[in-house]
Formats: sequence, C-alpha cells, structure tokens
Amino acid sequence: MSGYHPYNEADAIGLARSFENVFSPGADLHCREIGDGNLNLVFHITEPATGKGLIIKQALPYVKVFGESWPLSIDRARIEGEALKIQHALAPELVPQVLLTNHEQAITVMEDLSSHVIMRKGLMERTLYPRFAGDISTFLAQTLFFTSDLGMSQQEKKLRQQSFVNVELCQITEDLIFDEPYREHERNNYEDSIADEAAALRIDGELLTEIALLREKFLTRGEALLHGDLHTGSIFALPESTKVIDPEFAFYGPMGFDIGAVIANLLLNFASQEHWSQDEASRREYREFLLEAVRGTWTQFSAKFRTLWDEQCQDPVFSKAPGYQDLYMDRLLQDTAGFAGAKMIRRIVGFAHVADLDAIPDDAARERAKRLGLLIGKELIRQNRTIRSIEQIIDIAFTAAAR
Amino acid sequence: MSGYHPYNEADAIGLARSFENVFSPGADLHCREIGDGNLNLVFHITEPATGKGLIIKQALPYVKVFGESWPLSIDRARIEGEALKIQHALAPELVPQVLLTNHEQAITVMEDLSSHVIMRKGLMERTLYPRFAGDISTFLAQTLFFTSDLGMSQQEKKLRQQSFVNVELCQITEDLIFDEPYREHERNNYEDSIADEAAALRIDGELLTEIALLREKFLTRGEALLHGDLHTGSIFALPESTKVIDPEFAFYGPMGFDIGAVIANLLLNFASQEHWSQDEASRREYREFLLEAVRGTWTQFSAKFRTLWDEQCQDPVFSKAPGYQDLYMDRLLQDTAGFAGAKMIRRIVGFAHVADLDAIPDDAARERAKRLGLLIGKELIRQNRTIRSIEQIIDIAFTAAAR
Repeated sequence: MSGYHPYNEADAIGLARSFENVFSPGADLHCREIGDGNLNLVFHITEPATGKGLIIKQALPYVKVFGESWPLSIDRARIEGEALKIQHALAPELVPQVLLTNHEQAITVMEDLSSHVIMRKGLMERTLYPRFAGDISTFLAQTLFFTSDLGMSQQEKKLRQQSFVNVELCQITEDLIFDEPYREHERNNYEDSIADEAAALRIDGELLTEIALLREKFLTRGEALLHGDLHTGSIFALPESTKVIDPEFAFYGPMGFDIGAVIANLLLNFASQEHWSQDEASRREYREFLLEAVRGTWTQFSAKFRTLWDEQCQDPVFSKAPGYQDLYMDRLLQDTAGFAGAKMIRRIVGFAHVADLDAIPDDAARERAKRLGLLIGKELIRQNRTIRSIEQIIDIAFTAAAR
Repeated sequence: MSGYHPYNEADAIGLARSFENVFSPGADLHCREIGDGNLNLVFHITEPATGKGLIIKQALPYVKVFGESWPLSIDRARIEGEALKIQHALAPELVPQVLLTNHEQAITVMEDLSSHVIMRKGLMERTLYPRFAGDISTFLAQTLFFTSDLGMSQQEKKLRQQSFVNVELCQITEDLIFDEPYREHERNNYEDSIADEAAALRIDGELLTEIALLREKFLTRGEALLHGDLHTGSIFALPESTKVIDPEFAFYGPMGFDIGAVIANLLLNFASQEHWSQDEASRREYREFLLEAVRGTWTQFSAKFRTLWDEQCQDPVFSKAPGYQDLYMDRLLQDTAGFAGAKMIRRIVGFAHVADLDAIPDDAARERAKRLGLLIGKELIRQNRTIRSIEQIIDIAFTAAAR
C-alpha cells in the first residue's frame, strides 16, 4: 500500500484532467463525492459546459460498521477493476467501461452512469423495467458461460481463478449469509416484532442442513467468475437501460449464487409490496411485473446459456455428452433457488438489510412484509434440491403472498 | 528457472554432505540415480559404513513421452515439496520427512525409504498388506479433513488453494482420464483384442454423461488438498509400513478422487488375478484380501473422518447441521465410486497403463483381465450416483468376476 493515500476533490479533478478525450483542455470541472463513505470514495466529475462526466472510485482501507473501523484490504479495488474489464468485454452494453485502473492507489476510473438510477430505489418507486429480464439474463449468461470451464480454456480459467481469490470479501458473505442468521450473533439485526421468526430459524433442523449444503457450495465450487454481490443496489437501471456495477465481491464460485441474488432481490421487493395493501389492484399489478421479471430472468438466462453452450463450447466432453446439459441446468436452477432463499433471509434477520423492507413506515405492514419475505426465503431453501422449474419458484412466492 | 541445472551424481553427493545429522563428516558416500528418467532425477545417497541414506529428487523441465520431450514446468517440485510437508505434518508415520526444498533447483531432499517396495510390485507378487487399509485410511482422513473447509480456517484454505494451482499436471489428468479414453485419440493405447470395448466406450451415452459430471467435479470442486495421483505406484509399502510419496499432482479438488484412486488400483490388481486362473483357491484368497482392503479403506476412512468432524470441526454451521454429515459422506462414497471407475478405464484403453495388467504374459488371461477391469470400471461409473454403501462396490467387483 506504499504510496496509497485517500483522494480529495482536488486530486480527483487533477486525475480527471488527464482524460483528454472526455474533457476539454482547461475546462471548468465540477467534482462531487457521492460515495456512502463506508467502503469507498466515489467522485463524480462533470464538465457543465459539455455535460460530460466520469466516475473515479477509490477503495478505502477500512469499512465503517458499528460506528467503528474494520480494516479491509484495498486489493478489492484490483479485483473490482479487473472484474469490470472482463464483464464489460463480455457484455459491453451492460457494464460501465473502465478507463483506468491504478492498483497502488486502489482507483478505478469509469464511464459516468449518473443518468441512471439505483434499481432498488426504482423498484421502491414502483418503476417498471421492461428491459430488465432481457438485460440481466444476457449479463448472467455471457459472464458466467465465458468464465467457466464450458466457455474458456480450462488452463486459463485456473489462472484467472487464482487471481480472483478474494479472502476478505468472501468471508463477509460466508459470515453474514451462511452463518450468523442461523444462530445468536451480535451482528444480527431484526425487529422485536419478528423475534419469534429469528428464534425459529436457529432450531429448524431441515433448514440448517440445507444452509450447510449451500455454504459448502459457496466455499468449494469454482464454477465461474461471479459478480458476487448482484443485488438491486449493484444495478443502475433505467426503463431503457441496465448497467451492472460494483463487482468487488467477484470470485470463482457457484453460478447459482449470482442468479439467486437477482431473484432474491426481486422477491424482497415483492414482499415489500405489503406496504400497498390498501391499493390491491396496483399492488397486484406491480407484483405481476416482479414475478414476470423472476420468470424472465431464469427462462431467458437458461435459453441464452444453452445457446452459448451449443454454439461456443469447445470442450470435447462437455459439448457432446447426451443429457449432461439438462442435468447441469436442472442443478443450476436448484442452486439458484437455494441461494435466493438464503439471501432473502439474511436481509431480514441478519446484519445488512434492504431499504425495500426497512423503509416501510407502517409497523404492521413492515412486519407483514418481513414475515412474507422470510416465508418465501425458507420455502426456497427447503425445496431447493427438488425444484424442477421456475414455475415452482413463482408458485412459492405467489402462494406465500396469498396466505 | 535462473540458476537451475540438472544435477549429476557429484552434485548430489555434494548436497548430501551438508546433512551432517545424517552422514558422518568426510564419509564415503555412494550415489545411484534410481529415477525412471522421464520426469525426475532421483538420487539415492547411502553411507555404507552406517547404512544411513537419503533421497534427492529433482524435477526435470520436460517429460519424455512418445520418444520426444514435452516441456513441463519445474514448479511441480515446489508443489510436491510443499504437499509432502503438509501431508507429513498431518500423517507423520505415513509420509516421508522432507529435509530440504530448493524451489529454484526444483529439489526435494527427503528421508530414505529404500527398504520399502513400490506397492504395485508387491501386489503383483501377491504380498499381503495387513496394515494397508488402516494406514491409507488414516492418510486419507487426516490429509483430506485438515486441508478442507471442515478442518481448517476457510480463509487460510483459500490462500493454500491459491498456492496449489497446478495447471499443467491437472491438465494431464483432465486429458488422460476424463477425455481421451472416450473418443478416438492418438494417445489412446489398447490391444487389438479389446478394440471392441474401446469402440463401445465412445458411443455409450450413459457413460459419457457420467464422465462429463465427473470431469466437471474434477475441474470445479476445491474440497481439499488432494495427493492427486494416489495409485499403488505412489505408495511404498511393507507388510508393516505404508508410505505415500510423489504428490506432484497435488491441487485442491474433490476428495473422492484420492479415495477412488486407491480403490481403483486395488480393483485393477483384482482384475489382474485372471493370470492365476489355473489356481482357483489362491486366486480367490488374494482377491478376498483385495476386496477386504477396498472395504477397509472406505469403512475405516469413513469412521476416522467422521470422528475428526465430530471432535475437531470448528465451523459453527458444519459442526451442527443435523444430517449434513450423513449427506456429505454419502456423496463422498458416490464420488469415490465414480472416480475409481474412471481411473480403471483409463488404465486399460488410455495412454498410461498399469503393469498389473500389461505384464500378464498369457494373451487370453490378459484379455480376460482387461475386459474384467473395464466391466468393473464401467459399472462403478454407471452406478456412481446411486451407490449407498461400500458393499455395492464390492458386489460390483465380485459379480463381474463371477461372470
């Protein structure tokens, strides 16, 4: 970390000026730090005269939680920058372009996406995203296939896996998703009104066994280069555009973890629609959009992934074994369901929550929404190893909401 | 590779003299190069006056096959030396002690085991090894448990996995075991008398699907630090002692691959007993020893691994989830069966054979033995995902031999 120092606005403007194909020479540049200050500095540099801009992101050597600092290696900036480059190359319309990475300074300079809205916020405002399922399924199919043993040299894949070993950020996932919600832990965070649900999780033997199996998959299965944190806060969206950002949790893991993250966050918003229970028609309408997005994400992902496999797989064994692709996709859907369930539960009883649920002002509606989210999450986990079609996942959500 | 040069006997003796706790000062030392010259130099240094000795092993930067040289990184000496140290620490009686590693010179200096006999040779001479199942099950349980997410810090495990990325040697396995035997390939090697069997493998859809699943497991499942090549040529044995050597294929892979290698090689010798068909009683007796060794390897491994899990697992999730251990062990036995089958088949129709079978002088007996080995191997693969007990594996061998 020699030479590393946290940037101030003057540093950021100085660096921005070197991008002569973005900004005019000697331009008047504005800079605003728009990060949340917990993990990273994010400078948004704009040239008002032309409307052009770019983003300078710098990792901080700590994360602020519990009001205290917890050291975290800035190597995650290298991982994020390298993952962005790979993902942009595989899905150019769906990932911001990286203009520069500087590993020593933990800096990534990238395309300005400030016209977009964080998708979680958009979902909370009940924005319809007609392109979303199509776009995210393309992102998933392209990035997962072409970083796996199906879509790249198995020798190069091993070296890439080696360079994406991400000890610290994987540990956050292992702890917060696959461990703490299922026992008493000081970081767990739930409202008193659902303390009965949190207590029940800790003694639910069937669930604990499935969580152990999912945790094992997360720890051992190096299938593809995952985004690793693909919730709706890592997606910038407009009705006509989708951009996936922030892959600092990237590592080689099980594909279903990324697909499950997308589905979990759609279903968390589905649960949050309890907020609108006074307006049944509009609630039903938005929930239909959300379930259609869940269905479309899987069905379009599955179709695109199978097409890539049929057309691009060079492996002499994987390309020809009869029935193997079907077995693979069946298991991938099962993993997706299990990981989706685990991600829902941790957002309700674990350390890090989602605003979709926590921002519901009415106590009773918020409690109903959280109980609904937990019910869907538990059913996804309980049924994960026997799920055979995306309709089963839709049905779990639909049935739970109808109770 | 700066500074690397292949050692001659004078170099080896010079290095040996530096081990003053082994050899007397100014001693008369004898040196013999005992490697097969294809992959490594192996110098056996002895002091006749005291009977003491040691082994100096040096990796060559190529492997000789097809009468030509094929470059192979000497980094495998680092992997072998580091794996030996870890395995010796976990199973001190069962792995030679490493006295020195020099990565630049690709040298490992280790304890002299020349009193032992390569176990494959011992099996071919129908030696009984009453300690074998007990010893190898200890080696497997200790090395697999304590290098896995069950038995070590999951963060340290990731760093260890990173340092054991073994691109070139894994590729040898991926090609020779999980690919070439199932298609036409110039490296395949089988006798005309069993060409029908080789041809049938290439169009056996059920088998091709299972091989794809096993290949995928080998490529993606980083469960534990494997030996990676645990056949009976990597085991030095005496009736009263077992030593596991040569872990240059070590990498993080699926545990069943190591256990399956042991069982495959016992069953290849089982098949080779067709050589003794004129002497039914003694043939039956040795086969009983072999099947008992198969049974004991699994049952003792399973018992020891479960005890380690119950007593030593620190993980809050894996140590407590009810029924998870049973699911884990069931799947491990299934993987073991599948990998054992794949390893048997490749030794009969693939590039690298075993002397147990190839050295049978009588053409008819050798053909019978190879067909029996293929039959057992295919059944293990076909049934692998439904196997529930080691008795099923024994029964496959027993039934095939009785046909």
